[in-house]
Amino acid sequence: MPQNALYAQSGGVTAVINASAWGVIEAVRGHPAHFGRIYAARDGILGVLREELIDLDHEDPLTLQALRHTPGGAFGSCRFDLGDPETHPEQYERLVEVFRAHDIGYFFYNGGGGSMDTALKVAKMGDRMGYPITAVGVPKTIDNDLAITDTSPGFGSAAKFIATTVREASLDVESMHTSSTKVFILEVMGRHAGWLAAAAALAQEFDGQPPMLILFAEIPFEEADFMEHLNRTIERHGYCVVVVSEGLKNPDGSLFSVAQSHDVYAYTQLGGAAPRLSELIREKTGHKLHWAVVDYIQRAARHIASKVDVDQAYACGRAAVEGVVAGHHSFMPIIQRDSTQPYRWRMGRTSLESVADIEQGMPREYITPDGYGITQAARDYLRPLIQGEDQPPFERGLPAYPRIRGELLPKRCPSFEVDHD
Amino acid sequence: MPQNALYAQSGGVTAVINASAWGVIEAVRGHPAHFGRIYAARDGILGVLREELIDLDHEDPLTLQALRHTPGGAFGSCRFDLGDPETHPEQYERLVEVFRAHDIGYFFYNGGGGSMDTALKVAKMGDRMGYPITAVGVPKTIDNDLAITDTSPGFGSAAKFIATTVREASLDVESMHTSSTKVFILEVMGRHAGWLAAAAALAQEFDGQPPMLILFAEIPFEEADFMEHLNRTIERHGYCVVVVSEGLKNPDGSLFSVAQSHDVYAYTQLGGAAPRLSELIREKTGHKLHWAVVDYIQRAARHIASKVDVDQAYACGRAAVEGVVAGHHSFMPIIQRDSTQPYRWRMGRTSLESVADIEQGMPREYITPDGYGITQAARDYLRPLIQGEDQPPFERGLPAYPRIRGELLPKRCPSFEVDHD
Repeated sequence: MPQNALYAQSGGVTAVINASAWGVIEAVRGHPAHFGRIYAARDGILGVLREELIDLDHEDPLTLQALRHTPGGAFGSCRFDLGDPETHPEQYERLVEVFRAHDIGYFFYNGGGGSMDTALKVAKMGDRMGYPITAVGVPKTIDNDLAITDTSPGFGSAAKFIATTVREASLDVESMHTSSTKVFILEVMGRHAGWLAAAAALAQEFDGQPPMLILFAEIPFEEADFMEHLNRTIERHGYCVVVVSEGLKNPDGSLFSVAQSHDVYAYTQLGGAAPRLSELIREKTGHKLHWAVVDYIQRAARHIASKVDVDQAYACGRAAVEGVVAGHHSFMPIIQRDSTQPYRWRMGRTSLESVADIEQGMPREYITPDGYGITQAARDYLRPLIQGEDQPPFERGLPAYPRIRGELLPKRCPSFEVDHD
Repeated sequence: MPQNALYAQSGGVTAVINASAWGVIEAVRGHPAHFGRIYAARDGILGVLREELIDLDHEDPLTLQALRHTPGGAFGSCRFDLGDPETHPEQYERLVEVFRAHDIGYFFYNGGGGSMDTALKVAKMGDRMGYPITAVGVPKTIDNDLAITDTSPGFGSAAKFIATTVREASLDVESMHTSSTKVFILEVMGRHAGWLAAAAALAQEFDGQPPMLILFAEIPFEEADFMEHLNRTIERHGYCVVVVSEGLKNPDGSLFSVAQSHDVYAYTQLGGAAPRLSELIREKTGHKLHWAVVDYIQRAARHIASKVDVDQAYACGRAAVEGVVAGHHSFMPIIQRDSTQPYRWRMGRTSLESVADIEQGMPREYITPDGYGITQAARDYLRPLIQGEDQPPFERGLPAYPRIRGELLPKRCPSFEVDHD
């Protein structure tokens, strides 16, 4: 009897992570000689430690297939990293206990750089502890900061939502600017890398179109310079649309959204660059302004997913499984770009070591010299990633996102207290 | 020679106001015996006062047709009300001057309750000043607060965006809640009426689904009661999705988003109920939370427009013109609901007097007794308004929204200084 496979989701979820899940599930089932059953852990690696495993054979096949168009993490995700094997040996003993109890030989972990480190730890653990386990990563992150791969599933759809939203809201601002709003600020995610902010620039069809100013996490915020650019833009166009990364920094490296002097700004821990910037602009210019913070909405917007992104997410799930069947282990499938125009990509592989805990920033040459826009190279890179529409089915006016039942396998191990928070 | 027709947009724009514009333009052109040329004013009534008129015969016919799927106000809108005829006679003299110079006999004003008052003033002015003008309103507002009509074009699409977004973001929160975010807050527009907040509840398929708590502009915010509901929800579901109207009030009637004690919260003038609520919850519970403010995005989201809404916006534009051809004046087309299941509607008419400057709130019986949800009656009313999809064409990955050229007619009148701001 072949060993069973276990799939789990980790870190911030995306509009297409479930498409990867479906890729894994479908591919595992396509190789009955290689794999036994396919399980999913509830809430990522936490579910493995807690022995909360979902038997996917008990799910409605149509619901599993619908994962391809369902946002969020259908099996639950987690923010939890395994401890160091030296200091937290009990976690690894527990993993082996659970794997052994359910005859799990394959572990597919779907996440970003931190999750690839977890997958790597699981892979190494196996050999060390006499329970060989094939651990493989499946890439995912809206931040687009995974190394080696051309892009990360989840990014393209968030990018498409942001560019669409900027184009639409900018038409609104343009309509109103003579007698009302002069400045509109949109805050997007990206603590360290400004990929999502950069994607907003795809809304432009020609020079001078919104967004006129982008504030990247990578470029320290210089107030006087920004105000000068803002005023010049308003003089020229009558209004200004600004996109700001939540991770915008002050020149001293501190987070812009956390004010130095007023501790009431503490709420900005969770986004707040837009209201803070809005306050600053109001104080300095008196212009009427509006701001928006899209937060989770941008990474959950499956209704406007990029078809390229959905296809890549699904392909990454499948490639993880096919790689295992071909005899590989401790790897992460990557997307390789063969050509930009027309866009051609294929799947490749990289070692977990090469991506674990590494954050890939945006190259400086993707940002214009003045720091407020993106270059042609950035446009050429980004444009293919938002191509194609892939609408979910709608029922009674809204996208239909079926839910898995999530029935847990009977437990076979003693209970285990996970030390976290 | 028949007289010319003038169309203008007013107040906050919507995802479908241009569909009404197209309805007016197309219908006017369908009656060459009744109407001469069709012009549009730039920036609403301000453009009339400034004699900034766009000759639509100079626009690309395909661009005009594309108005049906283009958000924002293609001709520019304004926040400007005509003064009282007693105190501001010069404004009315100016209107007559411009109308006379361009032989305008028909004025179609597309806006909300305030704009209907402007249309009414224009209608009355004509008779008084010896230059008869047929003034007609075309309804529009995302707030759904126009009287008499069953709904207002613009609302259904904003409602569909909000319900979709709540459903999607809630799946995200649900995925993360065991080890991360427990509370997600979405702030929506609605200063006085909670229609948009109510629409969020359409995301629910059954009881207990997100959004678990809605804070309406109509129901005073009781902190202790809210916290109790929040805690109970988190105990039961593990997380809580809250939707809050920007217009939420304190028990004393003051705006919730403006803190009493800290003047640094002044920025909340433009939305800020979500960050403020977030701060309160964090202080009281310590839960990890996220918040989003969709602001203009919700009323510009043409990419997920409701087909019913688009059809009604277009029909309102056409009905305004057809009503004039049938000999009516000083009216606003209304949507009349003949049946809810199946949804059947037809166009009707009401006098401008009956809608000018009137705000129609949400009936109290649409809100559940506890004040945090909507009733079946509200669901029955709302559901038909978000039905059907009507995606715009996409080009290179994004919705294609062509722009009008906006070439102005040569001026024939002396310049005129508009006293506003």
